[in-house]
Amino acid sequence: MQSVRTLVLATAKFGSKVQSLKASRQLRFSSTFSSTSGFRAVHSSEVKHQGPVAKPKDEEKQQVVLVNAIRDIDGSMITIGTSTGEQHQYPSVWLRDNCQCPKCFNTTMQSRTVDWKYFDINIKPTHVMAEENQLKLVWNDGHESDYDLNWLLERSFTENVRKEWMKQHYPMTRISWGTVDFNKILKKYDFNDILNSDATLLDWLENIATYGIALIDNTPPQEDQLRRVADRVGFIRRTQYGEEYMVKHQPGTSNLAYTSGNLQMHTDLPYYDYKPGINMLHCLVQTEGTGGENQVTDAMHVAEKLKREKPEVYKVLTETPVEWCDIGQESGYSFHSLYRTPVILNDSNGDFLRADYSQQQRDSHFSVPLDQVIPWYEAHAAFTEELYNPENTVYFKLKEREILVFDNIRLLHGRKGYEDKPSNTRHLVGSYVDWDVAYSRIRVLRKKLRGHIRSHLSSTPVQKCT
Amino acid sequence: MQSVRTLVLATAKFGSKVQSLKASRQLRFSSTFSSTSGFRAVHSSEVKHQGPVAKPKDEEKQQVVLVNAIRDIDGSMITIGTSTGEQHQYPSVWLRDNCQCPKCFNTTMQSRTVDWKYFDINIKPTHVMAEENQLKLVWNDGHESDYDLNWLLERSFTENVRKEWMKQHYPMTRISWGTVDFNKILKKYDFNDILNSDATLLDWLENIATYGIALIDNTPPQEDQLRRVADRVGFIRRTQYGEEYMVKHQPGTSNLAYTSGNLQMHTDLPYYDYKPGINMLHCLVQTEGTGGENQVTDAMHVAEKLKREKPEVYKVLTETPVEWCDIGQESGYSFHSLYRTPVILNDSNGDFLRADYSQQQRDSHFSVPLDQVIPWYEAHAAFTEELYNPENTVYFKLKEREILVFDNIRLLHGRKGYEDKPSNTRHLVGSYVDWDVAYSRIRVLRKKLRGHIRSHLSSTPVQKCT
Repeated sequence: MQSVRTLVLATAKFGSKVQSLKASRQLRFSSTFSSTSGFRAVHSSEVKHQGPVAKPKDEEKQQVVLVNAIRDIDGSMITIGTSTGEQHQYPSVWLRDNCQCPKCFNTTMQSRTVDWKYFDINIKPTHVMAEENQLKLVWNDGHESDYDLNWLLERSFTENVRKEWMKQHYPMTRISWGTVDFNKILKKYDFNDILNSDATLLDWLENIATYGIALIDNTPPQEDQLRRVADRVGFIRRTQYGEEYMVKHQPGTSNLAYTSGNLQMHTDLPYYDYKPGINMLHCLVQTEGTGGENQVTDAMHVAEKLKREKPEVYKVLTETPVEWCDIGQESGYSFHSLYRTPVILNDSNGDFLRADYSQQQRDSHFSVPLDQVIPWYEAHAAFTEELYNPENTVYFKLKEREILVFDNIRLLHGRKGYEDKPSNTRHLVGSYVDWDVAYSRIRVLRKKLRGHIRSHLSSTPVQKCT
Repeated sequence: MQSVRTLVLATAKFGSKVQSLKASRQLRFSSTFSSTSGFRAVHSSEVKHQGPVAKPKDEEKQQVVLVNAIRDIDGSMITIGTSTGEQHQYPSVWLRDNCQCPKCFNTTMQSRTVDWKYFDINIKPTHVMAEENQLKLVWNDGHESDYDLNWLLERSFTENVRKEWMKQHYPMTRISWGTVDFNKILKKYDFNDILNSDATLLDWLENIATYGIALIDNTPPQEDQLRRVADRVGFIRRTQYGEEYMVKHQPGTSNLAYTSGNLQMHTDLPYYDYKPGINMLHCLVQTEGTGGENQVTDAMHVAEKLKREKPEVYKVLTETPVEWCDIGQESGYSFHSLYRTPVILNDSNGDFLRADYSQQQRDSHFSVPLDQVIPWYEAHAAFTEELYNPENTVYFKLKEREILVFDNIRLLHGRKGYEDKPSNTRHLVGSYVDWDVAYSRIRVLRKKLRGHIRSHLSSTPVQKCT
C-alpha cells in the first residue's frame, strides 16, 4: 500500500477527469411527492435477459490508494487524486460538516453532533495532507479532521458515484406486468419460511416492491397470523379500521368490503394522505359456492399503456384532483376522512408514482371547474376499461391458509360477489404495513445477508413463480 | 314553498349567471404532495381583526326554490334555475354517476354502488323535471334519478361554491408566528377537559392545526397518559421508536434525544416518507438544575421571511434534495430508514408545506451535483440562523404534568443540555398522532358540535392565550 504525503497551498491545476462545476442540474424530485421515493419503472419484458453478476464496487475500491490532496486558492475546495488516476472534489464546508472525529460525530448513534448554531460555513483548511489512505485536514480554528479514502469515494459528488448510491439505497425498481406475465411474476412463499428465514423474508419483500404482489401459503388458520408476518417486517400500520380488520359479511356495516356483494376494483384508503403501503389479506374461510374470487390489476401497467397510447387521457388523470371520502363508524370510532388527489399521481419525471381509485370512496363533490368534468369522466372511463381489460386483469380464488400481499398504492383489487351459507361464512383478515417500514427492513436484511444494500435486480433475472 | 314543473327538451338559452365553460384552470395541487392537503398560510397579524359571525349558508339555501330545469340539445348538460335567479349547470354524466337511488348509492355506507365496469359515460336523460324542489331525471335506459335542490347547490361547479366547500373541508388555515406573537397564540388546556369535553378537544385540535402548538396541563404523572389523549383524537401513530417513547438519559442509546446533551433544533423522523404529524411530549420529571429547556421555532414563519427577503436562499432550500437517515436499533428492532426531500417542501402554489431539518439525522451522503453543494450550505446556514434568531425562537421549561403538543412537519424543536442527579432524572414520554386522524376528528367534532364543518377562523378572532 503506497502512501504519498502532499501539502499544497498554491493554486490547484485540476486534471481533465475533475467533474465540471457546471454539472447539469438533474434533480429527480419524486421524493417530494406523497409516496416512497426513488421508484424506477421498468416493464417486465425489459429485465428478462441480463448479464452476469457485476463485480462489487467495494472490491475494486480496495485496490485504490490515495496519492495526493490539494486545496484550491481560497480553500473552499479540496481535490484528492488516487492511484487509478481519478480525481474527486469535496467542498471544504461539506468536509467540516462531516468531520468524523468523536466531537463532531457519534458513531454509536450514527449522528452528526457538530453544533450548527455555531457552525461557520466559511471555515477553511490551513493544512491538507494525504497520509496512509486518509485525507487529513487542519482547519483555521485548529480543529483536525481525518477521512478514510473509501469513505470519501463512497461520497464522491461525481455523477457515477451518486447514481450508484441512489440505485443502492432507493432500489425499488418496479416492474409492471399484464395478464400474460402474471404466472411468471407471482411467487408463493411458505409462511414458516417468512417467519424463520431472513433470506426468504428479503426475497418476499423485494418481490412485493418489484412486482407489487406475492402470495404466502400454509398460514395457520387463526385471526392473529398477519401480525406475525407484520412483526417480521417491522410493525402493523393502524388505520381507522384498526390494526387487523375482518373481511366478512357484516349486516349494517359502513364499509362495502364487509358485505358479500361484488366489490369493484379499488385501492384502500385513498382518502388518507398517508395511504397504507402494503396490503395483506389472509384467507381463513373461502366460500364453497361460486364467487368470492379476487381480482387484481397493475395500475402502473395500465398507466404506462395510457401514457403511451392516449397521452391526453393520461394527462387528465394525473392533473384532475378528485375528492376521496369515508364517513362512518368502526367499533365506536367515528371518522370523516377526506383527501384530494388525482387518480394517477406522477413523480416529477412524469412517471407513475401512485394510483388512487375507488368508486365506493369517490365523493359526489367534485371540486373542479365545470369544463373539466366531462373530460375527466372520459379519461376515468378509459382507465376503468383498461383495469377490467382481460389483457391487464387477473382473477384468482384465494385458498384457505393463503395470504394475498400487494402494493396498495400501485395495484387495484376487487372481489366477485358471493353468498354465505350457515355452514360456510367467507372470512378474510386484513392488515397493512407501510413502505417506510418495509424499505427499512429491506436495507437491514440486504446489509446483513449480502454485506451491502444493492438491489437484487442489478444482477439477477426475473424470478419465476414456483 | 313554490314548486314549478318544467319539461324542456329544446335548446337551452343560458342566462348571464351561468358559469363560463371556459373557466380558468386554477388547480391547487398541494394534495399531490407528501403532506396534508389544502393548507392555507396566513400570518398571525392578518387575522386579528375580523368581522362578525357570517350567516350560515345553509340557512340562506332554505329560502331557495327550484324553478326550472333544462337540458342542452345533446343532453350532456342540465341547467337548473332557482327562485333567486341563479342558474347552475351539471353534466349529465356526473348526475348519472351520482344518482342517489338505493340501487346506485348506499346511504348506510355513504358509498357509490354504481358499477363502473358497465357504466356508460354517454348516457343522456330523456326527461328533465323540476318538481317539489327536486330535479327529476329519466334516463335513456329507463333508470330514474331524483336530486334534492340543496344537495345540488352544495355540489355546484360554480367557483364560489367550490371555494366555499374547499374552505369548509380543507380548513387548515395555518397562521405563522414569531417570538413576539408566542404568548398570544399559545393556549393551555386542562387534561381532564381534553378527555371529557368535545368542545375543548376541538378547540385544542384547531389550535394545533392553526398555530402548530398548544399545551396541556394537569396531566396525571404516569407514562401511559399520552395514550388517553391520542385515543381521544383517534389513535397513536407508531414509528420505529414504538407507540410511546421515553425521553431520558439512556447510556448506549442509538438516539441523541435519549441523552442529556444539547439537542439541536430538528423535526422528528425526517427519514420517513410518512413523517408523524402531531408530536406530544409529556413531562413526568423535569430537571431541577439548569438546562432542559425546550425550544421551538415556527419553520413556516422562517420560510415566509426567507421567501420574502432572500428568495434565492428560499429557492435553494426548496429545490435541493437532502438525504435523511436513521440507522440503529430500538428494543431489538433494527432499522435503516432513509428518505430524500428538501429542507423546505412547497406546495404547487409555491407556499410552505413542510419542513425537514435535523443535523443529527442528515446523512453525510449528499447526492447532488458538486456545484449545488456550497449554495445549499449557504442557504442552510441562513435558515439555521433564522431558526435561532431571538425574533423567531422561544425557550420555555416544560413543567411536570404538562404536555407540549406541536406540529412535527411545521415546528422545529430542540432542548438545552442538562444534568441528571441520582434523585432527579429528567423524564419525558413522547408519542405521535397523524394529521389524517386529527383532521378526521376535527371534521367529526365540527359536524357534531356546530352542525357543519366550517373553520372557526372564518368568523372568530385569534384566540388569546389563557
